[in-house]
Amino acid sequence: MVVQPRLLEKLAGHVCKACGEQRAIFVVTSPEIWSRWGHTFLSSFADRKIDILPLFIPPGERYKQLKTVEHLAEKMIVAGAKRDALLMAFGGGVIGDMTGFLAAIYMRGIRYVQVPTTYLSQIDSSLGGKTGVNLRVGKNLLGSFHPPVAVFSDPAVLSTLPPAELRSGAVESVKAAVLGDADYFDWLEHNLDSLLAGETETLTRAIETSVRIKAEIVSLDERESGERMLLNLGHTVGHAIEAATRYRGLLHGEAVAWGMIASLHLAVARSALTLEQATRIEELTFRLGPFPRFRATSKVLLERTAGDKKHLQSARRFVLPVAIGKAIVVEDVSQQELLAAIQSMLRTMKERGV
Amino acid sequence: MVVQPRLLEKLAGHVCKACGEQRAIFVVTSPEIWSRWGHTFLSSFADRKIDILPLFIPPGERYKQLKTVEHLAEKMIVAGAKRDALLMAFGGGVIGDMTGFLAAIYMRGIRYVQVPTTYLSQIDSSLGGKTGVNLRVGKNLLGSFHPPVAVFSDPAVLSTLPPAELRSGAVESVKAAVLGDADYFDWLEHNLDSLLAGETETLTRAIETSVRIKAEIVSLDERESGERMLLNLGHTVGHAIEAATRYRGLLHGEAVAWGMIASLHLAVARSALTLEQATRIEELTFRLGPFPRFRATSKVLLERTAGDKKHLQSARRFVLPVAIGKAIVVEDVSQQELLAAIQSMLRTMKERGV
Repeated sequence: MVVQPRLLEKLAGHVCKACGEQRAIFVVTSPEIWSRWGHTFLSSFADRKIDILPLFIPPGERYKQLKTVEHLAEKMIVAGAKRDALLMAFGGGVIGDMTGFLAAIYMRGIRYVQVPTTYLSQIDSSLGGKTGVNLRVGKNLLGSFHPPVAVFSDPAVLSTLPPAELRSGAVESVKAAVLGDADYFDWLEHNLDSLLAGETETLTRAIETSVRIKAEIVSLDERESGERMLLNLGHTVGHAIEAATRYRGLLHGEAVAWGMIASLHLAVARSALTLEQATRIEELTFRLGPFPRFRATSKVLLERTAGDKKHLQSARRFVLPVAIGKAIVVEDVSQQELLAAIQSMLRTMKERGV
Repeated sequence: MVVQPRLLEKLAGHVCKACGEQRAIFVVTSPEIWSRWGHTFLSSFADRKIDILPLFIPPGERYKQLKTVEHLAEKMIVAGAKRDALLMAFGGGVIGDMTGFLAAIYMRGIRYVQVPTTYLSQIDSSLGGKTGVNLRVGKNLLGSFHPPVAVFSDPAVLSTLPPAELRSGAVESVKAAVLGDADYFDWLEHNLDSLLAGETETLTRAIETSVRIKAEIVSLDERESGERMLLNLGHTVGHAIEAATRYRGLLHGEAVAWGMIASLHLAVARSALTLEQATRIEELTFRLGPFPRFRATSKVLLERTAGDKKHLQSARRFVLPVAIGKAIVVEDVSQQELLAAIQSMLRTMKERGV
């Protein structure tokens, strides 16, 4: 993992250092990203005898499906890509997840490199080796654990990101601070305006720190059986909101922000977290807003947290913030508790949502 | 790996021993296999509280594609299968490869069990952990290394197999004997008629021995970088024949049989193998025939061994039989040598093919 402003201009050197000399690199990207950054990308490879073969996929979650992966694989076969081929994901989380999955299954596994171009993918989805695609019946249901050979993040690329994307992505930084690093939380309180203004130095530090927190947790638990669950802080209710709104209207980070608010209410109701700390977390989170309101009843959201109705009665596993900088996984959250937390969140939404 | 006549009648016990108690098992099978063996299968589970949920796929290589895997996954989601779900492949190689791949990617990996129902899948494809599907542009191009938790083979199930399938499958047993076990080769010379007559005891011993040879080689080389190449004896030219005939007209074992004949010619021409040993191997192989003739010129077959035309000029990696019971991987087979071997094979085909 390398985080470096204007890294893109020196990308070829980084890639060859990490992966050895290449004959060809297959770059999965979107037409939009390539038209904005393709020139910079190609310039860095100008002096080297490496064929750069862009494979375009349309932007958007709805193309994150097996059919798209199949098309990309067919193009690679026709272009002669063998088991020694190198893939590169050059885009946001959707492109990263699909490229990683393509690499996982192409001829039973080839190497790939992540060059994430959104804040969220730089701090989160490019790390940890989770790859996959959606089914019609749900997100990320098919996939592999297949870590990239290297991740190269250029914070300068974020300058062209829509402000809402940066704000939404920063929710995951707040999440990382809450669950694992009180100093980072303090730092975010002091530097959030600079981060949201897109100051490269602040972005770089924020990315490095978020990445370090995630990497520490993932390294303890590559296959997601224990500690890695902590990264789901805010995601139980966040995913329920995304599912209830059919993934329309809210960005992922916005749904997670509401999910974090629900977690805070649940933690305070249990006296696991002081009201003072909960308020600090809530205030920092809302500085990334305002977040859109959405239409969903507490009953529907509760149902969606269960995955399916059969599990509705049983106690839920839940990530509970217990201090600024510390969260724990609990297994005994009852549906009554969760319903109360969701209802509190919905009240907060009426006051503070837009 | 358990090989046992009438194992199917006691399948439930074997599965629970290997995988622990289950709530449900998703069985990928074909309507034909299920109508013949489903009753026996279900009887063994009658006393246990396990839901058996058959998922049917049509027989045939052309359904071995991502779309089929996607349909199966959607059905599993709707049925509530989580990461602790157990999949079972109950069928031949196509069903085994696809079920293994489904298990590899369903929620980033779940467990599965192989219950192979053809001779070829009992001795070969159910072992080693290779899973995958075809692309339109070629076979087995997408996949994973994802070994099953257990393999349960019932030789008694083979009694309903078409004779050509058994003969074709037995080619891989001859191959295993040639590359790794001279005693097994002698045994096959003495017991081939009994094997082809479907004698359960003979089948059981043949399966056990073939499996042991393959397992020894695979255990040295899980990810297919070295020794595992030996298993490709006869497959360089065999695959070329399959590709040149578009996978129609010849069973896999039949194509491999012709490929072995080509390997023998090449080995004798190099004086790597004595003519006497080559003749013994050829005679044993042809006892599994007669094998169908096919239409393909030596030039086309040579091209197909290269994978793509760019590699046509370069020396080929090739598995060379050097004695009954021993093969080696060589890297220096020239196209002239290979062309001569293919031409000799085609002459043999004119004499002995049907």
